[in-house]
Amino acid sequence: MAQLAAALAEIKRGIDEILVEDELIAKLKLNRPLRVKLGMDPTAPDIHLGHTVILNKLRQFQDLGHQVLLLIGDFTAQVGDPSGKNSTRPPLTPEEVAANAQTYAEQAFKVLDPAKTDIVYNSHWLGKLGATGLIQLAAKQTVARMLERDDFKKRYSSNQAIAIHEFIYPLLQGHDSVELKADIELGGTDQKFNLLMGRELQKEAGQSPQVVITMPLLEGLDGVKKMSKSANNYIGVDEAPAEMFGKIMSLSDDMMWRYFELLSRRSLEELAALHQQVAEGTNPRDIKILLAKEIITRYHDATAAEQAHQAFVDRFQKNAIPDDMPEVTLVAQGEGLAIANLLKDAQLVASTSEALRMIKQGAVRVDGDKLEDTKAVVSQGVAVYQVGKRKFARVTVA
Amino acid sequence: MAQLAAALAEIKRGIDEILVEDELIAKLKLNRPLRVKLGMDPTAPDIHLGHTVILNKLRQFQDLGHQVLLLIGDFTAQVGDPSGKNSTRPPLTPEEVAANAQTYAEQAFKVLDPAKTDIVYNSHWLGKLGATGLIQLAAKQTVARMLERDDFKKRYSSNQAIAIHEFIYPLLQGHDSVELKADIELGGTDQKFNLLMGRELQKEAGQSPQVVITMPLLEGLDGVKKMSKSANNYIGVDEAPAEMFGKIMSLSDDMMWRYFELLSRRSLEELAALHQQVAEGTNPRDIKILLAKEIITRYHDATAAEQAHQAFVDRFQKNAIPDDMPEVTLVAQGEGLAIANLLKDAQLVASTSEALRMIKQGAVRVDGDKLEDTKAVVSQGVAVYQVGKRKFARVTVA
Repeated sequence: MAQLAAALAEIKRGIDEILVEDELIAKLKLNRPLRVKLGMDPTAPDIHLGHTVILNKLRQFQDLGHQVLLLIGDFTAQVGDPSGKNSTRPPLTPEEVAANAQTYAEQAFKVLDPAKTDIVYNSHWLGKLGATGLIQLAAKQTVARMLERDDFKKRYSSNQAIAIHEFIYPLLQGHDSVELKADIELGGTDQKFNLLMGRELQKEAGQSPQVVITMPLLEGLDGVKKMSKSANNYIGVDEAPAEMFGKIMSLSDDMMWRYFELLSRRSLEELAALHQQVAEGTNPRDIKILLAKEIITRYHDATAAEQAHQAFVDRFQKNAIPDDMPEVTLVAQGEGLAIANLLKDAQLVASTSEALRMIKQGAVRVDGDKLEDTKAVVSQGVAVYQVGKRKFARVTVA
Repeated sequence: MAQLAAALAEIKRGIDEILVEDELIAKLKLNRPLRVKLGMDPTAPDIHLGHTVILNKLRQFQDLGHQVLLLIGDFTAQVGDPSGKNSTRPPLTPEEVAANAQTYAEQAFKVLDPAKTDIVYNSHWLGKLGATGLIQLAAKQTVARMLERDDFKKRYSSNQAIAIHEFIYPLLQGHDSVELKADIELGGTDQKFNLLMGRELQKEAGQSPQVVITMPLLEGLDGVKKMSKSANNYIGVDEAPAEMFGKIMSLSDDMMWRYFELLSRRSLEELAALHQQVAEGTNPRDIKILLAKEIITRYHDATAAEQAHQAFVDRFQKNAIPDDMPEVTLVAQGEGLAIANLLKDAQLVASTSEALRMIKQGAVRVDGDKLEDTKAVVSQGVAVYQVGKRKFARVTVA
């Protein structure tokens, strides 16, 4: 029972919600590998650390002896955007789907154990469904039930169009769980309704309903918005070690602990020990270095992590960047902030003309790198700006 | 133009609504055979005069030179009731569908001209649609648009379940119009929404939208409820000539004119002349005989019509049934009215014991036939009851 309690604590680490915890406990007691499903859309294979939160949770299940079913949602990807309104989402060919799935798998296997992962494609069963099967599936749920979903409810009540096929997709996702006999399905909090649909369809098919576990969205480098490419606050799993290191070191201390909880493979006991060290006076920066090296080791290797650490030390600590410096948030307008205005607004210079002069003198650094372009424009992101030897500010452009 | 005006008058005879009349006029001016669609469900092939109202309208189009597309909705019939809630609606096999369609066609061709009728099966194109095609079709309409349909709106607002596949059926029906390039589609008033869906999908497919013509439901023999088997107020097209004759003669004078308008192939001019005759003193009963003979000639032949007429004269006029008699409406309770109570309530006898005595004496007739069963129970319908030589009442049991 102590083992079960430990397993449960690990599973619950960092999650948003379990539905239903008692059922999860009952399943864990079955003493067989549980079938843990994660669906992925094969349209956008490049993943960042935000995407890996859920992969990490899957890895925890694998470490507990369970089997992961990585479901490639190729069926609907091959349909494309049936409304025809989104020209940026054309149907994918089977070859494109396979290539994207391959890229995704290569990245996912830096987190997952391939020996305990089955990659499955839902076109294998949805392709055989036919119009008849789809009608029979659509008969299993009501319009009222679908309109309970948060985003549908909001759109319906605010007279925004919901196309009828949008009601079909949650049913297809639920049907996948029936076909896979999933014990557990993971998803983002925004997926909760669709994940519950799997439970309903499984019950109707006479199966034990899957336990639904929702995961939170990881905040990006700014600690506010969710990590995404469009917000430029992300760390891609394919980024160079030095980039990863610098970005992780730019996290606030609070966000560092959040990343440890959601991304680290250190046990809960180890995390408690790190917290204790900081409480006893260790500089959080040193703990952040541990996180950066763990992440880089995962996506590159231990040597790359060591080199990135050393390069960071050489560049920053030798430049004597202080641990504490002013934190400034500026709002970009139009195409962004001209560098001279940014330096002035961050109170690193007295005027834009001083700013331009300092740049020309080679006295301005951004994240330790000398800035030479007097016409640089910053649209968004976080960086440490330095003027001369002693003036520093961590500036967030939003 | 006079010809067009006459055609339009004939098309508008007895209909409920045309959407849109200007478009119909434009199509009639094309001087080519228009494609006039009627969908039929192959689950219930036995038709009665109520069903023939719409066939009659199709026949008018044929007489004006147009082509009828009789669409057998075999695709959904082969799906059955996907909710599984209606065990009386099992999926039909292709053989059953073919047999039902054959039976229906045999009956329909007593009204329609086979040379100007194409029988088409929607499984030919819907069967090829696949789950992908169905999703693409479902993307063409919104949930809000579907919830505008009267019955959906009522059910949704009163928390009655609408299964999602019910939103798909109107789209399939509309898609049929696209595939058939229908110029006109006919249907009952309850079909208006589905017929309009055809217009929308045709427009989206770049076709000229079909004109929608809705037909009223024919009232049954009681002149109140719509004709149906379950209300036992119908005349089946396969009924024996004598049955048909008696039932038509039991119609009220108002209903007689209604049947002339919706079922007779007499022209509007001929009908005007018959109205004139009655206005000038002709007994409406004699006009009703013309209707009865026309209907029997259509579904049997002229000889059968003549014989039915003669038999009716022999039985009723020799029994001196008066033209005017009390009209009584009684309400059946439980399984129906016992005959003795019926006769008493209709004031044909003073007591139920008198009623039973008169039956035993052979002095009671129903529609001219001697009644011998003292335990007869009447659940619904219209008939002339006679006690002795002089007491008559036309009794409607509702």
